[in-house]
Amino acid sequence: MERIWTTQLRAHVGKRVRLAGWLQRLRQLSHVSFLILRDGKGTAQIVIEDQELAEQLGRLHAESVLVVEGLAVAEPQAPGGIEVRQPTIEVLSPASAPPPFDLFRPRIKAQLPTILDHAPLALRHPRHRAIFYLSAVSMQGFRSTLRALEFVEIQTPKLVASATEGGANVFAVDYFGRPAYLAQSPQFYKQIMVGVFERVFEVGPVFRAEPHDTPRHLNEYVSLDVELGFIKDHTTVMDVLAQVLRGMLAALHEDAGDALALLGVKLPEVPEKIPALHFAEAQELIFKQTGEDARGEPDLAPQHERWLGEWALREYGSEFLFVTGYPMVKRPFYTHPDPERPKYSNSFDLLFRGLELVTGGQRLHRYEDYLAALASRGLSPEPFEGYLEAFKYGMPPHGGFAIGLERWVARLIEAPNIRETTLFPRDLQRLTP
Amino acid sequence: MERIWTTQLRAHVGKRVRLAGWLQRLRQLSHVSFLILRDGKGTAQIVIEDQELAEQLGRLHAESVLVVEGLAVAEPQAPGGIEVRQPTIEVLSPASAPPPFDLFRPRIKAQLPTILDHAPLALRHPRHRAIFYLSAVSMQGFRSTLRALEFVEIQTPKLVASATEGGANVFAVDYFGRPAYLAQSPQFYKQIMVGVFERVFEVGPVFRAEPHDTPRHLNEYVSLDVELGFIKDHTTVMDVLAQVLRGMLAALHEDAGDALALLGVKLPEVPEKIPALHFAEAQELIFKQTGEDARGEPDLAPQHERWLGEWALREYGSEFLFVTGYPMVKRPFYTHPDPERPKYSNSFDLLFRGLELVTGGQRLHRYEDYLAALASRGLSPEPFEGYLEAFKYGMPPHGGFAIGLERWVARLIEAPNIRETTLFPRDLQRLTP
Repeated sequence: MERIWTTQLRAHVGKRVRLAGWLQRLRQLSHVSFLILRDGKGTAQIVIEDQELAEQLGRLHAESVLVVEGLAVAEPQAPGGIEVRQPTIEVLSPASAPPPFDLFRPRIKAQLPTILDHAPLALRHPRHRAIFYLSAVSMQGFRSTLRALEFVEIQTPKLVASATEGGANVFAVDYFGRPAYLAQSPQFYKQIMVGVFERVFEVGPVFRAEPHDTPRHLNEYVSLDVELGFIKDHTTVMDVLAQVLRGMLAALHEDAGDALALLGVKLPEVPEKIPALHFAEAQELIFKQTGEDARGEPDLAPQHERWLGEWALREYGSEFLFVTGYPMVKRPFYTHPDPERPKYSNSFDLLFRGLELVTGGQRLHRYEDYLAALASRGLSPEPFEGYLEAFKYGMPPHGGFAIGLERWVARLIEAPNIRETTLFPRDLQRLTP
Repeated sequence: MERIWTTQLRAHVGKRVRLAGWLQRLRQLSHVSFLILRDGKGTAQIVIEDQELAEQLGRLHAESVLVVEGLAVAEPQAPGGIEVRQPTIEVLSPASAPPPFDLFRPRIKAQLPTILDHAPLALRHPRHRAIFYLSAVSMQGFRSTLRALEFVEIQTPKLVASATEGGANVFAVDYFGRPAYLAQSPQFYKQIMVGVFERVFEVGPVFRAEPHDTPRHLNEYVSLDVELGFIKDHTTVMDVLAQVLRGMLAALHEDAGDALALLGVKLPEVPEKIPALHFAEAQELIFKQTGEDARGEPDLAPQHERWLGEWALREYGSEFLFVTGYPMVKRPFYTHPDPERPKYSNSFDLLFRGLELVTGGQRLHRYEDYLAALASRGLSPEPFEGYLEAFKYGMPPHGGFAIGLERWVARLIEAPNIRETTLFPRDLQRLTP
């Protein structure tokens, strides 16, 4: 008999079915026992009236792997309205020890560090699993939107000879006796590839050796990167970003309904036009309305980002807000200045629910501008030789952005800590599991 | 006016169009000049009769970036049957130097090391670009096939605390003063995730610190990884692999026709049933038919893989051949033995055009079997504690496989060196660009 998923039971009422999965819970009452079987998609209740079978199952630890054949019966009292009766059960793989926490409760009763220590088990909990289903569908929506816009997927090296995003904060690797580094971003490579395909994207790991210990930072995360040529300026990039976000949300609406419902997520809407504020305007607004004077600061403080998020929601009903024109001093050397006000840049951050989700902008595209930008920061062009070749041989005006996948999902489910939306987080303390 | 791709010209004959791209070639004749403009998809011929304009363009280096407006005219003599006349041309971004080789020739006239040194330029050549279009479409076909089979995409960490595929040959990373390693594969994580989603896949970089210097090895490559639970044995995995290959080839047929034609690629067919030989049978066959006695050797030599590839083509008309049951001594510790002949394993390699393309098989799934397997190889279970937790708490019989993306494309286009199908190869000598 073909095995079906628990989520397909409804279509098999009145028939014998074959299920497979994990023994999530066994409740033994005096005359009947209820077994909750969890498979890769959902759970099913199995009713056990055979006393001998119930005793045999009672000797198993939770999480043992079973194959169940039985009759699918509509039963309004059962979870999901269907249960499986008259089962025969095969123990495919018994668990070797009792789990350190129960997976049948609505939430795991343990602190985050314990949950992370036991990720191979904790990720099986339906809520935790649902989070990473949102990640998978988000990636799919990201890619399908970009493919429809004629972008081509690339995979670029993570072992590099020089830092991309600034000299410090890179992990060093012993590369056959030579020093190498882990790429902080695919920035140089995606720009080079604009010279080839014009429009490219990449989904891959990035590495930041920042000794941060905050609920919003990871030392390795998944970056959804986009770069495109023949732009007017950063506003072309912002338009593509808005389309990508709409595509990611549409994919979630279409393919992740169960996971969203389980997690109680209300997806945001991307307005027809995402409101945008220039960095200088944002500082003026914060000063006028809160009395806090951060004018002259080169960046926004986290509490000011939160304030701006609330302001955009209040004024525009938007959970997204673009802040444009960040000061050049706070942006990397490849950033294109605003031709009208060269102390500001043609760049942007996208705030989502009061937190920076995306950074992007227009890049320099003239070889001479790169040489000048490196020189003005006291950097030698030599480590960047390969990268600079792309600009020496003609590059159009271009730009792009990067979305942090874990941060995106964390904001969607409003998780207080980004580790909750990371399969196996890497931070100052944590390198396992 | 909206910019169109050069590949859209045919639909605009008789109209004025706007194109943008790179000055690939300018041929100045006495009364007329021909400019070949290359964009991210193709090329177009621009006819220049204005002498002043021709002189202005003649002062530009090749690869300067232009915007061209003109009239699309059907012209049987022109490449592609259409040309653009009466152009106005804007120089968007002049190249700063003449390229070290021409991109307008059918093939770049330079040796592979020179081509790789100048990858940012060389990848713009239509043939080189087409190769990486095949990579992109292959990834797309891989993912869409697996999603249709209910697999979920995961992204797992590349910074790990212990080697996955054996003790040596790992790159060491300084992780905040502690030792860490670059993952040789997502093996442990994809197995752990079988406990969560049952069926998972990942596309990402893997790192092998092997001091090989061959045309088939890279120190960083893209691995297309699959793992699934509730299998009968390795043959279930082989069936999924055959479906995935069919899906990848179907995607190439559908979306990469131009690239395939340009490269002169004839795609292989995946037979209804891919022929399969047991390792021991393969050795007997080689001995009987070639006289070379490698019986007792624990692996196949490259020349014997080639011979088997030719044999399968001759006997079955198949460019693919499974070799199953490799000796346990040559497989990693997580490999499941053949219950009938425990010196052999429930594993396989897939040979494609005489070269190993895919490795896969069934894995151990019982906690006690892992402890025994580690002990028998003299390995301590401690570094594997997080990984082993997945098995302690119940895992179904499972298995999977990994396809090397660069090797797949190399075999498709029959490239003699895998560096030709790698965007920015990493090897003993090469860490840039």
